[in-house]
Amino acid sequence: MVAVAILAAGKGTRMKSNLPKVLHLVGGQSMVERVLGSLSEIDPDPRLIVVGYGREHVKATLASLPGLTFVDQLEQLGTGHAVQQVMPYLGDYAGDLLVLNGDVPLLRPSSLKKLVDLHQHHGNAATLLTAQIADSSGYGRVFCSEDNLVTEIVEHRDCSPAQLKNPRINAGVYCFHWPALKQILPHLQTDNDQKEYYLTDVIQEMSPVMAVDVDDPQEILGINDRKQLAAAYAILQQRIKDHWMAAGVTLIDPDSITIDTETTLEPDVVIEPQTHLRGKTTIGRDSHIGPNCLIENSHIGSNVTALYSVISDSTVQSDSRVGPYTHLRGQAAIGQQCRVGNFVEIKKSTVGDGTNVAHLAYLGDATLGQQVNVGAGTITANYDGYQKHATTIGDHTKTGSNSVFVAPVAIGQGVTVGAGSVVTKDVPDDCLVVARAPQKVIPGWQPKSERQSSD
Amino acid sequence: MVAVAILAAGKGTRMKSNLPKVLHLVGGQSMVERVLGSLSEIDPDPRLIVVGYGREHVKATLASLPGLTFVDQLEQLGTGHAVQQVMPYLGDYAGDLLVLNGDVPLLRPSSLKKLVDLHQHHGNAATLLTAQIADSSGYGRVFCSEDNLVTEIVEHRDCSPAQLKNPRINAGVYCFHWPALKQILPHLQTDNDQKEYYLTDVIQEMSPVMAVDVDDPQEILGINDRKQLAAAYAILQQRIKDHWMAAGVTLIDPDSITIDTETTLEPDVVIEPQTHLRGKTTIGRDSHIGPNCLIENSHIGSNVTALYSVISDSTVQSDSRVGPYTHLRGQAAIGQQCRVGNFVEIKKSTVGDGTNVAHLAYLGDATLGQQVNVGAGTITANYDGYQKHATTIGDHTKTGSNSVFVAPVAIGQGVTVGAGSVVTKDVPDDCLVVARAPQKVIPGWQPKSERQSSD
Amino acid sequence: MVAVAILAAGKGTRMKSNLPKVLHLVGGQSMVERVLGSLSEIDPDPRLIVVGYGREHVKATLASLPGLTFVDQLEQLGTGHAVQQVMPYLGDYAGDLLVLNGDVPLLRPSSLKKLVDLHQHHGNAATLLTAQIADSSGYGRVFCSEDNLVTEIVEHRDCSPAQLKNPRINAGVYCFHWPALKQILPHLQTDNDQKEYYLTDVIQEMSPVMAVDVDDPQEILGINDRKQLAAAYAILQQRIKDHWMAAGVTLIDPDSITIDTETTLEPDVVIEPQTHLRGKTTIGRDSHIGPNCLIENSHIGSNVTALYSVISDSTVQSDSRVGPYTHLRGQAAIGQQCRVGNFVEIKKSTVGDGTNVAHLAYLGDATLGQQVNVGAGTITANYDGYQKHATTIGDHTKTGSNSVFVAPVAIGQGVTVGAGSVVTKDVPDDCLVVARAPQKVIPGWQPKSERQSSD
Repeated sequence: MVAVAILAAGKGTRMKSNLPKVLHLVGGQSMVERVLGSLSEIDPDPRLIVVGYGREHVKATLASLPGLTFVDQLEQLGTGHAVQQVMPYLGDYAGDLLVLNGDVPLLRPSSLKKLVDLHQHHGNAATLLTAQIADSSGYGRVFCSEDNLVTEIVEHRDCSPAQLKNPRINAGVYCFHWPALKQILPHLQTDNDQKEYYLTDVIQEMSPVMAVDVDDPQEILGINDRKQLAAAYAILQQRIKDHWMAAGVTLIDPDSITIDTETTLEPDVVIEPQTHLRGKTTIGRDSHIGPNCLIENSHIGSNVTALYSVISDSTVQSDSRVGPYTHLRGQAAIGQQCRVGNFVEIKKSTVGDGTNVAHLAYLGDATLGQQVNVGAGTITANYDGYQKHATTIGDHTKTGSNSVFVAPVAIGQGVTVGAGSVVTKDVPDDCLVVARAPQKVIPGWQPKSERQSSD
Repeated sequence: MVAVAILAAGKGTRMKSNLPKVLHLVGGQSMVERVLGSLSEIDPDPRLIVVGYGREHVKATLASLPGLTFVDQLEQLGTGHAVQQVMPYLGDYAGDLLVLNGDVPLLRPSSLKKLVDLHQHHGNAATLLTAQIADSSGYGRVFCSEDNLVTEIVEHRDCSPAQLKNPRINAGVYCFHWPALKQILPHLQTDNDQKEYYLTDVIQEMSPVMAVDVDDPQEILGINDRKQLAAAYAILQQRIKDHWMAAGVTLIDPDSITIDTETTLEPDVVIEPQTHLRGKTTIGRDSHIGPNCLIENSHIGSNVTALYSVISDSTVQSDSRVGPYTHLRGQAAIGQQCRVGNFVEIKKSTVGDGTNVAHLAYLGDATLGQQVNVGAGTITANYDGYQKHATTIGDHTKTGSNSVFVAPVAIGQGVTVGAGSVVTKDVPDDCLVVARAPQKVIPGWQPKSERQSSD
Repeated sequence: MVAVAILAAGKGTRMKSNLPKVLHLVGGQSMVERVLGSLSEIDPDPRLIVVGYGREHVKATLASLPGLTFVDQLEQLGTGHAVQQVMPYLGDYAGDLLVLNGDVPLLRPSSLKKLVDLHQHHGNAATLLTAQIADSSGYGRVFCSEDNLVTEIVEHRDCSPAQLKNPRINAGVYCFHWPALKQILPHLQTDNDQKEYYLTDVIQEMSPVMAVDVDDPQEILGINDRKQLAAAYAILQQRIKDHWMAAGVTLIDPDSITIDTETTLEPDVVIEPQTHLRGKTTIGRDSHIGPNCLIENSHIGSNVTALYSVISDSTVQSDSRVGPYTHLRGQAAIGQQCRVGNFVEIKKSTVGDGTNVAHLAYLGDATLGQQVNVGAGTITANYDGYQKHATTIGDHTKTGSNSVFVAPVAIGQGVTVGAGSVVTKDVPDDCLVVARAPQKVIPGWQPKSERQSSD
């Protein structure tokens, strides 16, 4: 039986931000959401979020997450004070309480599981997570007997020269036996430089207290400024990229690539430099993505080539080629063996198998059949200033260069649309449709009155 | 009273360049300009630039900077020889002379201020900047008594094994009492391997000589080749990015971002990867820039989103969205709450508040009112082959897809322009304007004579 | 007289790939091709490629390379077993045999030359390449007498604590006197944990055996997983970039740039961030490339500016400007002093000197003369659904905005093409050609039936 209290009340002054610190994003997720995510292997109940600075903003951000209880800490008087606020919410609760900081976003679920398991196995009064780091300067040092029983925690400034050499530091992550903790919490004092209630002060009053090292000291990085925020993102990225490389994905110049936690990649995918995969994106086997793509919440089939493109909330089926300079803006569904090319934007449209939209086109609210050839400069005029209208184009139809389809309009199969045509009325199958003025030639012309776009 | 002599006569053979070494750019500014910039806290007079290789090029590059005196060093016979050339320019000058190298571009103004202040406070004959570095191999070592009085400078090749362990090196930055220096300068000898006149040789003839360590040894990096040039840029970038992160800017993947010295950012700006901010660019609060933007000398308001775009010498007001694939090419003024989208180029144009230019458009020399909707493929034909002409489009007007405005032309407010129209004559308010051939349909067509752009 | 055997039979399980390990690419070339490339200074004959897993795929990939003999290793029973397979191919051969691994792609030709020369100079039975590395953990240690004669090779797991401190490791690259080796090869045993035939076991049976250190330990990196593949690419890139910086090329933010082995750059070229130069690309003096270009197999003249563009299999002559957002898709030949601009795609086309294609254009199968001005939105409709057709446009001609040329069509010199014209028939010199409906204005219009593209 484990409850959790996440301390999320601090302003984070060094962030220099209007946003409460725990709402800053690391890899598309707020820090406090990442902390909640690190609980996945222990499933605590209740989940108490201690909020203070910007607490309405924090509550609103987390509103959609189930099972959270918000605990107000109206003044921020230290970590001990923060945990004191949860007392009314736990009352006679007889289990354990895990205490986490909302600004420590890199903890692995397995590390917390190990902490809680060890705590419960030994029946400790308290168990704290520690880390052995090369440069422990500035951290509180944890001193233990051989069996990892904590003998003392000494703040950096109070360490003797010999004590300073201890590489074992306090990670600020605790598992407490709540009945033991609640006896001590009310008696915390503020007799320290900061005049704050320190949670560490309870440790000396409890027994037995055990320490357990985290395997990877990077997990306990706390975020206090934007530089640490960038460092946390880099660590997270390294984890994700190492995972996908081990799973058979080639990353060319991994340092220039970013991949979100929720993205999944199949083996033999190749990711070229400066490519960013975000949200619930999936990339199928043998696809070659990048350089320089941003793909968000999209599904890319197998053996797809995409380069220099932005793809959001869309799908591209197998064996298609996208880019360079394509924007699939949302709800674009591209079939198999399509070619979507240069300076093409597609939104809320379906493109059938084998259809090409190769150059300088805009498709919105359109449904294209199979084997359609969309000429360069083709535009679906889908907006009348009030609402959107649909365009449909049948299989094997070919649209001329710089043609416009004024929606709502339906073009049949096997239609040929003349270059420069503005099509406003439906066209049946197997027709030629032209809307074009005849070509007039005026010899001996001195170019005075005609204008070209230039410079 | 401080004068400065900047040694800028060297060719820089290892740069393998037609450009004199001191004119190579670090972060958009030449090295010698950066050296001049490092004088901002001491304001020396006169400012003597010793030029030699490519000296006309150096003079031309610095011509617009006030208060510089160029001193020719026609042969490059060493640092001592270079300083000898300034003797006719200083004459009976009774103050101090700061000697800097034109290829040491990372000195902080505060470091030079500290050097000069200490020199003058102690009334030294000479004071030299030193650095303590882990790998001092190759550098001249500076030996001092406890009170930082220099006892000896020994070149690397002349060091005993014990002397080689001295981590304190000569940075090549000196402050001299000129009346003392000018007595010694004429007597320099060339009895060394290089047969050059070494400025360091004066030190043993002067007293007292003091050394002062620079706080950050990176400041004294001298640039001799392109790899060091890249290293200097990286150091400069690290400084700038650390500054803005401390000031409340989020940089996602800072290593992939570059920011020029003159650019300023407000708190809670987010910069995405592969974004480059150059020149006198400003970005307002809460704006989200990138991935993959190049913004030069432009003013971006607050809460603006821009991605995958190139913006030069333009402004974008608050709450507007730019990109992907927008080019604001110069003197584009985008209002508030605008949307400038995909494959859109704008130059020398004003776009009113709430106006959308969302797809595949070119605007040049145009003035658009508020709440205009510019259809996809709209082009202002602003060039007649001889000069440029203006287009104006009034509030609430909607231009059809693939429409062309042949400038000079004025379109009123509330106008609807039909798709595919070429507009050559002014249009009053609240009209529909169409220039379009009727749609003809020819059934049973075998597509032989019509062509589409493809592949 | 040197023969070579390249061991290329392994699956590479940790690559998690359908592709045989040695076919994975490092910088655009497969690992086994890079190994073959490292033989350039010794020119061995015969060249035996020992293939096993995916051997048909390996053979097919290398099919175009001359002088290779493929040796099947149907089961993969160890390095000794692999070399046993070449016995029928060498028979009474009396020279030396170089044995290389197909997954060690970074060996320099000079290192192999040094190995073979030393082997032959000393008349060794075997000579092996070694490296001194700081962290030798996991590698077999090589122990030598003072004169580099090998006394013992000990696998990591069999090393005593003292032996573990030996930083000299076996690189797995051998030169054998074949008549000596072939006596021992048949007697290899599999009395080891892996039950494999180890090539190292022959060393203890031969004499004299000499070791020679590779100058750069990075050369011997073997690739077993995607992370090592990425590391190898990074090492290769560092080499290439160091080379070009030493040769007088400025790389701004070198870490973000990649350059292929076959690319050549002239002095005073500047490469901006996030630029990738691939294949047989050449860049001429003073050209400024990037940010954010991909240039493949293309020739760029001197003093060219290109940014935010993709250029493949094309040429751009001196003093031209390309981009942002240009795609030269293949066989685009751009003349001198041209401007190819925003959202322009060109393929299989020639653009004469001084011609501008500045905005939103598609040129395919076109030949443009000199000083042509191509208006924004100009498209060559080159495809009739069956085949491609040519467009020619003469010197000094100006094409109007949103004009279409329906190929085959020839436009003379000095022609002015009206905006929005669809040109289907040839036009002689010095004409105005217009195909446009007259402008009609309908006042008091309520915009109901006309549609614009938007959102």
